[in-house]
Amino acid sequence: MRKYTPVNFSNVKLEGKFWRERLETVLTHTIPSQHRKLVEFNMLDSLTMRKPVPPLTIPRRKDGFTTQIFWDSDVGKWIEAASYALSHRRDAVIEAQIEAITLQLEETQAADGYLNCWYLQREPENRWTNLRDHHELYNAGHLLEGAIAYFQATGRRALLDIIEKYVDHVADTFGPGENQKRGYPGHQEIELALIKLYGVTKDKRHLDLATYFINERGSQPHYFDIEREARGESVEAFHQGTYEYNQSHVPVRQQNKVVGHAVRAMYMYAAMADLASELNDNSLKSACETLWRDITETRMYVTGGFGPSESNEGFTTDYDLPNDTAYAETCASVAMVFWAQRMLNIDLDGQYADILELALYNNALAGLSRDGEHYFYDNKLESDGTHARWDWHPCPCCTMNASRLIASVAGYFYSTSNESLAVHLYGTNQATFSIGKTQVTIKQVSDYPLSGQISVAVLPEKVTKFALKLRIPGWDQGATVRVNGTAVDVKANLENGYLAIAREWASGDTVELDLPMPAERVYAHPHVKADVGCVALRRGPLVYCLEQRDNGTEPVNSLRLPRTADVQAVTRDDLLGGIVTLQAEGVCVQSSDWSHDLYRATPPMEIPATLTAVPYYIWCNRGPNPMQVWTRE
Amino acid sequence: MRKYTPVNFSNVKLEGKFWRERLETVLTHTIPSQHRKLVEFNMLDSLTMRKPVPPLTIPRRKDGFTTQIFWDSDVGKWIEAASYALSHRRDAVIEAQIEAITLQLEETQAADGYLNCWYLQREPENRWTNLRDHHELYNAGHLLEGAIAYFQATGRRALLDIIEKYVDHVADTFGPGENQKRGYPGHQEIELALIKLYGVTKDKRHLDLATYFINERGSQPHYFDIEREARGESVEAFHQGTYEYNQSHVPVRQQNKVVGHAVRAMYMYAAMADLASELNDNSLKSACETLWRDITETRMYVTGGFGPSESNEGFTTDYDLPNDTAYAETCASVAMVFWAQRMLNIDLDGQYADILELALYNNALAGLSRDGEHYFYDNKLESDGTHARWDWHPCPCCTMNASRLIASVAGYFYSTSNESLAVHLYGTNQATFSIGKTQVTIKQVSDYPLSGQISVAVLPEKVTKFALKLRIPGWDQGATVRVNGTAVDVKANLENGYLAIAREWASGDTVELDLPMPAERVYAHPHVKADVGCVALRRGPLVYCLEQRDNGTEPVNSLRLPRTADVQAVTRDDLLGGIVTLQAEGVCVQSSDWSHDLYRATPPMEIPATLTAVPYYIWCNRGPNPMQVWTRE
Repeated sequence: MRKYTPVNFSNVKLEGKFWRERLETVLTHTIPSQHRKLVEFNMLDSLTMRKPVPPLTIPRRKDGFTTQIFWDSDVGKWIEAASYALSHRRDAVIEAQIEAITLQLEETQAADGYLNCWYLQREPENRWTNLRDHHELYNAGHLLEGAIAYFQATGRRALLDIIEKYVDHVADTFGPGENQKRGYPGHQEIELALIKLYGVTKDKRHLDLATYFINERGSQPHYFDIEREARGESVEAFHQGTYEYNQSHVPVRQQNKVVGHAVRAMYMYAAMADLASELNDNSLKSACETLWRDITETRMYVTGGFGPSESNEGFTTDYDLPNDTAYAETCASVAMVFWAQRMLNIDLDGQYADILELALYNNALAGLSRDGEHYFYDNKLESDGTHARWDWHPCPCCTMNASRLIASVAGYFYSTSNESLAVHLYGTNQATFSIGKTQVTIKQVSDYPLSGQISVAVLPEKVTKFALKLRIPGWDQGATVRVNGTAVDVKANLENGYLAIAREWASGDTVELDLPMPAERVYAHPHVKADVGCVALRRGPLVYCLEQRDNGTEPVNSLRLPRTADVQAVTRDDLLGGIVTLQAEGVCVQSSDWSHDLYRATPPMEIPATLTAVPYYIWCNRGPNPMQVWTRE
Repeated sequence: MRKYTPVNFSNVKLEGKFWRERLETVLTHTIPSQHRKLVEFNMLDSLTMRKPVPPLTIPRRKDGFTTQIFWDSDVGKWIEAASYALSHRRDAVIEAQIEAITLQLEETQAADGYLNCWYLQREPENRWTNLRDHHELYNAGHLLEGAIAYFQATGRRALLDIIEKYVDHVADTFGPGENQKRGYPGHQEIELALIKLYGVTKDKRHLDLATYFINERGSQPHYFDIEREARGESVEAFHQGTYEYNQSHVPVRQQNKVVGHAVRAMYMYAAMADLASELNDNSLKSACETLWRDITETRMYVTGGFGPSESNEGFTTDYDLPNDTAYAETCASVAMVFWAQRMLNIDLDGQYADILELALYNNALAGLSRDGEHYFYDNKLESDGTHARWDWHPCPCCTMNASRLIASVAGYFYSTSNESLAVHLYGTNQATFSIGKTQVTIKQVSDYPLSGQISVAVLPEKVTKFALKLRIPGWDQGATVRVNGTAVDVKANLENGYLAIAREWASGDTVELDLPMPAERVYAHPHVKADVGCVALRRGPLVYCLEQRDNGTEPVNSLRLPRTADVQAVTRDDLLGGIVTLQAEGVCVQSSDWSHDLYRATPPMEIPATLTAVPYYIWCNRGPNPMQVWTRE
């Protein structure tokens, strides 16, 4: 079913300032500092069996739970991110670190292949007794993704062999057979990892296991009931109360609302989209499309974040998108990039690329600081100044999601089919791939997203006919395109958000794409209570916010941006490494004439004030301070 | 120090519709139904020692705590409210109920006078070991207030004798003596009860004990540290983390910010104001004035509620007054009425009467439904429709605070000094009292707060010279006053919010006071983040709100009230027993033209819409629905 195949990031060399800078930061600072944190917090040490068992590093909650139980996943995710780094440039230190982990895992792995370091060390008798809460399959999935990435970066199979042995054990354990458990993960993730593995091994058992997990999910009698009863636990002891929390309330094809824990949902939807393609399964594709409409039409922040609630790290009700308490987990937006890419490559529909770009450039990118060593777990759209980046977290899932995304971001730029090349993202880079049997090199030049001027040089090894499909973003205000200087009728050739230029391409042919990037106002659906009467600012793919430090001494929410005020883009090379700010002449409510009254009959005085907005992704890189995305109009 | 003495509610006969209706509801429905609830929830049964000890009715929290430990206080508060009812009209059923409780307490009381039903039954060895959390002295205070009220209503001393014996035990136990504990209540309340008792007994030991509790509070070494160490508990086990929670962080005279649990704070400030008067203690008066400025200038809702946070049931930071999560406990506003009355009678300063009236007519009164049997514990200023009244609560403190306030509300109307009568509140009633040695009757006629037209007939038993001091509220827009038809210069005779009319009064003299009551807009200090750009409506003492059911099908927060829109008062005899609504031609954001977009570049369409506001105190009497006090302007 999948019509397009992504061009692997290792074939795309990012050269433009925007992504090259971030990639270098991740390679140079984030990946090594994350390894230091894994050491510092005993997360690597925990991979080795020790007697006596060391005391917990992460304390248990009152209900006995500790996030320490997920540590294998964090190690796996770091290996994945670090391996992507190796794909950019080999590094003996990183490789030695991964080899050391490989040896630890080899020693710890049980004879039957089982490999969960928590259970093997602390409660070996309880393996596979609480899939609902205890993340064994989730951990396995991340170890698998790490092992695949390391194999692909280095060709070394030792780690992948270990994890494949574990996968064999998982495949023996779970399934419809008489002696098998009819279980599936409480925290989805392994499904998409197994499909990746299938891509490497072409072993259909791997695809079958992913399919089993997806198809079995939510069927009756409910597996999580069965294992709960086996544990002798009450229904009430499940603190989340509903299987919507882990999207197992009904079988996946019957799901039509995005519910529950947002990261679990996104990983599952990504796997569903993969399986729809691999199996040509229209019922899965259709379920994905329904869920896509639901999230984009009722449950997504303007920044591409979602899952507003801290209590379930996930979804609540339609249009419930509070700004100051937004959870909008970094991991969830990273996983949305995964899902959107998979949906995009089925039909090349630009709506998926638009959300991919939105989530990537805004909520996901906000999760990592400019220095590459500080993080947001939750991404609020309004802060009173207390929301701050941290350098590590008791549950560091978001840290390695940020690094693995950015280390592989070049993989989201292009897709190919037999007869076409689709360009999804813009920025200076050089990519090489095959169309049919012809090798083609593309050289993009653009300082996108600072501007929308993009030059694409096409360099096929020989003259070749194919369609170059340029994404015209949903936010576009009037793109113009010229091929070797000759204008192309954009509207006439636009299909599902992509401009198709089908011709015989010869080396040196050049396409000039100009995407005008005026500052734009954005309004939310009136049922988004938090945003009524407010306006947000956007320019190109970037959503903007007001940080207090750029906006005077009155609280930032005292500012108002009248509908008639002109909003200007101002390039500021001196600020935050070079950004485009948005400036407008608005007004500001004054507190200076209020003396001691808390309430009064006279309206507050307003005076003119210049509003300065910066891209949302870069906020809180000059220390915590009040911030807002939505401003009164 | 106190210049004025309140006229007891038993000497003021309420006849006007507004208060008479509510009083009748409390006498007829609330008091009897509350007794039924005390029975239904085993709260009366718990006063009698049983072996084996019955299981808990209110479950323990994870930290072992249960609100069942406060039940004595709820019984005491019901006795107080019921006794106020008896002061209006004797009732054999109620009296038998109180006598039955008296017998239970008599049997349960320990030989040494100690009388806490929880401890005596469940952990007799632990009495007085956790004043910080376990409310023994708070319970004693409420039992004492109940006993005093019952004695005053009926002249029967049995209950008061029991509680006085308990007070003797408390006085023996706590104090500066060598064999005494230097303790004081974790939940203040007994201090003001002891001062009430002193008013009955004139026994200085009762005043001294109250003084000791207030003076000792917050001194070092800290008593709550000492008893915590004796219990072998860690510092961290105190889940509130700071002694600001119970206002014992520093001695009371050093306190200059209202902090912590709001109800504890208010009861303590009321006792401090009492003691300032009783002891002529300027340092206490000054501390009260500082705290008064702090709460009224930075920490109070426009409805007279305060204490925005659920986590500490109390105060947070300056200007932190969120509407949708407002805690604004009913009890706290009731206690504010107590404190304000005490401050008012020291100097007759109208600022105290203004807040008394604000808290009484809005946040406090909202706590009880029109049917007298449903309650709000927390009083939000904005609801998404889920906030609903309940008919009982695991911690029913607010229920009896509502009933005891309304049953005695007539006591807030008047105060006397040797040479003057001050009128604080308006409404049809008849009051009798002495000025000097002369008995004077006052007949007020007014449908206040429906209108501001007030007629006061003065009926002294003989011609007498005194000053009639009429409160001119802070919200007044141009009061006019005539004495026997002759206009009085209001401005020239106004002092601290009271118009003084000093003359020889003869029977039949009549004062006509006209307080214009236009609808008014109210604006919050710009640092109140939740209210920026918004306006509230007020008319006379009543703050208004928009309920969804009166305001069309679009969400109530889609409405906007432009600054130029005329706001009309509309009498609606058909609505909620007869109220004045406020109506204005505003605008409403439309969702009908949004199709499926969640965000778009085109601003939302607005169409004209009539806004209808009802008094805040009466909201949610037609079922739960969305509501807001603050509306976009």
